[in-house]
Amino acid sequence: MNNDITTIAFDADDTLWINEPYFQEAEKEFCALLEDYLPQHSVSQELFKTEMKNLHLYGYGVKGFMLCMIETVSKVSNDTAPLTLINKTIEIGHELLQKPVELLEGVTETLENLKGKYKLVVATKGDLLDQERKLKKSGLQEYFHHIEIMSDKKESDYQKLLKHLDCKPKNFLMLGNSIKSDILPVLEIGGFAAHIPYHVTWSHEQHDLNLEHSNFMELERINDILNYL
Amino acid sequence: MNNDITTIAFDADDTLWINEPYFQEAEKEFCALLEDYLPQHSVSQELFKTEMKNLHLYGYGVKGFMLCMIETVSKVSNDTAPLTLINKTIEIGHELLQKPVELLEGVTETLENLKGKYKLVVATKGDLLDQERKLKKSGLQEYFHHIEIMSDKKESDYQKLLKHLDCKPKNFLMLGNSIKSDILPVLEIGGFAAHIPYHVTWSHEQHDLNLEHSNFMELERINDILNYL
Repeated sequence: MNNDITTIAFDADDTLWINEPYFQEAEKEFCALLEDYLPQHSVSQELFKTEMKNLHLYGYGVKGFMLCMIETVSKVSNDTAPLTLINKTIEIGHELLQKPVELLEGVTETLENLKGKYKLVVATKGDLLDQERKLKKSGLQEYFHHIEIMSDKKESDYQKLLKHLDCKPKNFLMLGNSIKSDILPVLEIGGFAAHIPYHVTWSHEQHDLNLEHSNFMELERINDILNYL
Repeated sequence: MNNDITTIAFDADDTLWINEPYFQEAEKEFCALLEDYLPQHSVSQELFKTEMKNLHLYGYGVKGFMLCMIETVSKVSNDTAPLTLINKTIEIGHELLQKPVELLEGVTETLENLKGKYKLVVATKGDLLDQERKLKKSGLQEYFHHIEIMSDKKESDYQKLLKHLDCKPKNFLMLGNSIKSDILPVLEIGGFAAHIPYHVTWSHEQHDLNLEHSNFMELERINDILNYL
């Protein structure tokens, strides 16, 4: 592996801490609210459609998710549901915004090992305040130079990030659980990328691929990265 | 004025482009929706209360504003309003998210003059995607090194920003329309700050003060800053 790496960026949700299971739990609770109108799996499909329709307006994160759930209440019930279902939907969102932060295995020891040797940043999608809250609750704040919220994780977004970090692609390593968002665009612009799979992935992030690339590493756990650096 | 300034940060909303009038227009439209339940000025008060209650969860920006309007529909109507009012509220938010960007007077010539001589950044609260959209629509993108979304604009937030920009307070100048958010915390940490008043200010940002400080400038228009640099 290349030894020019100076900056390491970590995806946050489902790379540093648990996230997608919380979203799925919230979605399940939401779909159950509407089962008088539509079977739960159909509500889930409607919600996903609404999320994709609004993605260009809301971007990623809990607030957009809440707004999409609310819109789905109207759609699924043909505007007949009582407002109390909207209130319950808002409550589901508030719970999601106040979940505990559970670190994934090996995260702290990996950061402890890399600290001082590299510039470490968090590079994540989502709502800024929510991600800051999670970082604070995680106790990992001291390890990171800063938290970078990205409106998307396409090639151009990584190019902006690197410009902003004053970092060349060959000096940059990204770690994350999403092949589509954390790996492919980084390899495409000439950076290094390490994939750490997580057992649940949002449909929007799913990607099937057997990837072979000289700048790519497939890891089992986050601390395996230490063997490459 | 100090000549050590290397980095100039601009607030965005109501400093670079019009914002608050759009929010007030949206709020007026929203309050009119609910006038069968409560007089418009009382709806406005309820909305403000809801915004303050949720600020720690949502932070700043249009998505949080939408969620607060939705919550206010339930509150003001005692859960009796039809869902169609929720749909209309969401529409008001979507319109807000797609407003044209109207630059304030003197912005382009000021940036043109400063370009290349200083590192220029946008330092703003709000939703990342929405602020990126506005920056893109504004045509000002080429002038800025990057856009920094801040979850708040207190002293500690500016300290984080400066750390992240690798910039000392004495090398930093902030320009903005809010005494509370753009000026006082920056002076407090030892930076320079220039106030450009705007004719409408959100109640949450209002501040009465006759400010005298060696690092402070009161400007009439944004281009007046060129006389100080």
